[in-house]
Amino acid sequence: MRVQLDKERFVSTMKEQAEIGGTENGGLHRLALSDEDKAVRDWFTEQLEQLGLDVRVDAFGNMFARRSGTDPSADPVMIGSHLDSQPYGGIYDGALGVISVLELLRTLDDEGIETAHPIEIVNWTNEEGSRFQPAMQGSGVWAGAHDIEEEYAKTDEDGTSLEEELERIGYKGDVPAEPQDDYEAYLELHVEQGPYLEENGKDVGVVTGIVGFNWGAITYYGEADHSGPTPMHYRKDALVAAADVITQIRRIPSTLGDRTVGTVGYIDAKPNSINIIPEEVTFTWGFRDPNDEIIEEAVDRVLMEAETAAEREGVDWEWEQRMDVSSVDFSEKCVDAVQSAADDLGYDSMRIFSGAGHDATHMTSVCDTSMVFAVSEDGKSHNEAEYTSWDDCYASANTLANAALDLADSA
Amino acid sequence: MRVQLDKERFVSTMKEQAEIGGTENGGLHRLALSDEDKAVRDWFTEQLEQLGLDVRVDAFGNMFARRSGTDPSADPVMIGSHLDSQPYGGIYDGALGVISVLELLRTLDDEGIETAHPIEIVNWTNEEGSRFQPAMQGSGVWAGAHDIEEEYAKTDEDGTSLEEELERIGYKGDVPAEPQDDYEAYLELHVEQGPYLEENGKDVGVVTGIVGFNWGAITYYGEADHSGPTPMHYRKDALVAAADVITQIRRIPSTLGDRTVGTVGYIDAKPNSINIIPEEVTFTWGFRDPNDEIIEEAVDRVLMEAETAAEREGVDWEWEQRMDVSSVDFSEKCVDAVQSAADDLGYDSMRIFSGAGHDATHMTSVCDTSMVFAVSEDGKSHNEAEYTSWDDCYASANTLANAALDLADSA
Repeated sequence: MRVQLDKERFVSTMKEQAEIGGTENGGLHRLALSDEDKAVRDWFTEQLEQLGLDVRVDAFGNMFARRSGTDPSADPVMIGSHLDSQPYGGIYDGALGVISVLELLRTLDDEGIETAHPIEIVNWTNEEGSRFQPAMQGSGVWAGAHDIEEEYAKTDEDGTSLEEELERIGYKGDVPAEPQDDYEAYLELHVEQGPYLEENGKDVGVVTGIVGFNWGAITYYGEADHSGPTPMHYRKDALVAAADVITQIRRIPSTLGDRTVGTVGYIDAKPNSINIIPEEVTFTWGFRDPNDEIIEEAVDRVLMEAETAAEREGVDWEWEQRMDVSSVDFSEKCVDAVQSAADDLGYDSMRIFSGAGHDATHMTSVCDTSMVFAVSEDGKSHNEAEYTSWDDCYASANTLANAALDLADSA
Repeated sequence: MRVQLDKERFVSTMKEQAEIGGTENGGLHRLALSDEDKAVRDWFTEQLEQLGLDVRVDAFGNMFARRSGTDPSADPVMIGSHLDSQPYGGIYDGALGVISVLELLRTLDDEGIETAHPIEIVNWTNEEGSRFQPAMQGSGVWAGAHDIEEEYAKTDEDGTSLEEELERIGYKGDVPAEPQDDYEAYLELHVEQGPYLEENGKDVGVVTGIVGFNWGAITYYGEADHSGPTPMHYRKDALVAAADVITQIRRIPSTLGDRTVGTVGYIDAKPNSINIIPEEVTFTWGFRDPNDEIIEEAVDRVLMEAETAAEREGVDWEWEQRMDVSSVDFSEKCVDAVQSAADDLGYDSMRIFSGAGHDATHMTSVCDTSMVFAVSEDGKSHNEAEYTSWDDCYASANTLANAALDLADSA
């Protein structure tokens, strides 16, 4: 059985959600557990209740609604993503994967389609990790990767705890934040956030896994001297050592693999005054690759470069690991379902490894999992310029819908 | 005629001032026009009034007191420095040059010494330039290098204007902030803030001039993409371009001169998130050298490196000049007076070019000028570890005192 979503309604629902926290420049500013997040959650609840579904909110604010199946012994197929956004992010990242499922549920009702397995829609709390860390927090708690009390205690920049905010917006639910049932499968549609689909002229991506990543931070301790009378050979400049390593992190991926990436996203210098030699500089590293061994090698090389830079500049240093997440391979059953859906619908697809983490990462520990990727123009995301055409949104949503139907009807 | 200051009283006065805004670690936190600055100004006024001197405060808060000379037609010799400090700076930077003069005035009274020329003590407003920019602001206004209304309007980080703060602490005086008389000479004692005196085993420095400097800032504009799925060859990373230039600024001085220094003291990255490729990075440059042509060449090279880094990384960029101050040569007459004083007192001295700017920079446009340098151990300054032994403080103060007496008795 194949379905086609109502394209006009699908686009209109996408636009509707994009107004909640929408920015002047056509982006989205809907930080986890903010007033805007509450507004979109209220709106989402209303849409589900209009379909006659009960909305279940767990103790971490994750939201679920289940459409019954015909087979009482069949485990549910979960589909969804997240409705929170990056600060001044795009309107597709996360939302596309939730709205597509909402539209699927509407279409199933419209067409009176029943499935053997229940279909469960999910909106995960705080996937983005920009207001509270880490990213993929709600799915991580739910899947047992994080301790809920530790995550409750996480604070934003203003020192407000996540738990306080959950309570304030009324989304700290009564259901335990953990699986109450076995699950048949988990599917998630997301924008690619990279350029590979567009570069290869594809309509949709069949995601076979997610790269691992390693995040850490290095701090150099130099000496804060006056920038005028201190001769160059007396200096212990923490920023020069940091700059040395930053240029190396640009280079390291090119020596390791064609999917390896390395980034320094954050830097903080003290005292940060034009007239004082920097005393203390902290900066982060982030490496990703489908192959965990390559990531390990990248980190080894950074630490080697960091030591060399420290000796060269005569500064002390230390480092800390911040995250170390192994790459995951999706289940063949789910990948095949996505591939078949794309093929049957006549979409030109390619197999792709996700360069970013997703809630699906955590779901692989719960049940069979795969993802569908939508084309990201220019590979842009996490900013207001993020763009996916409605045609590409629709193609990926139909692929998701039919892959889910396939899994929900499987024996 | 030669004088020797009272060493015990001199040290005790140095310690007394160091308690006003003193820090736990033995440093000084006495930012311009802060409550601590008001307190030290009040204390300073009291000391001068106890000597029977009238304290004159000008419209920019610069403080003067004049001890009469015997020759009614002789122009005053001005001596002094500044009582404000860096944030968590040292107790010598500035204060040593004011306290030495206070002790000289006391000694002249004690010993009943009269001079032909009046001797005028000065405490300049905001030499440090850390709370309000630029540095050497009070002397710059007074000498006509800056417009007073523009400088009044400068604000600190909290948005408070300099004029408001002058009024709040009661140090916006009635006297115009400009020379009311001709001056015979200006002398200033300051800690070297560099290692040359100590390296060469000298007691005091005879300062022959001040290096010029050029400050500017470069901003790179890249693209803020997700650090995971964006392949390395798609990136326009503003921080990588900045790091490239920072490493070059470490190298450029070594290709230009033995007194050339180059520093990046400030860097700011946006959005500064571990998971986002930096979109916009601003950093500063600062170059100093006794030779203005070398400074010009250093700036040319930085801009060339900046363009190369921009092309390499595919980012846009712009730059701005922030300060461009020519080097100055002190007057032979004043340099000779300092040299003779050091020689007569039996101090081992060396001629030295100042690596930092001082109020004396601006005074060269008003009258003959020179400076005395005190040994800075390890060349440290602008932090709490700044240190000059009492013996070295005393040697430099006696040198200043006798050089001033020499000039004040000259025909």
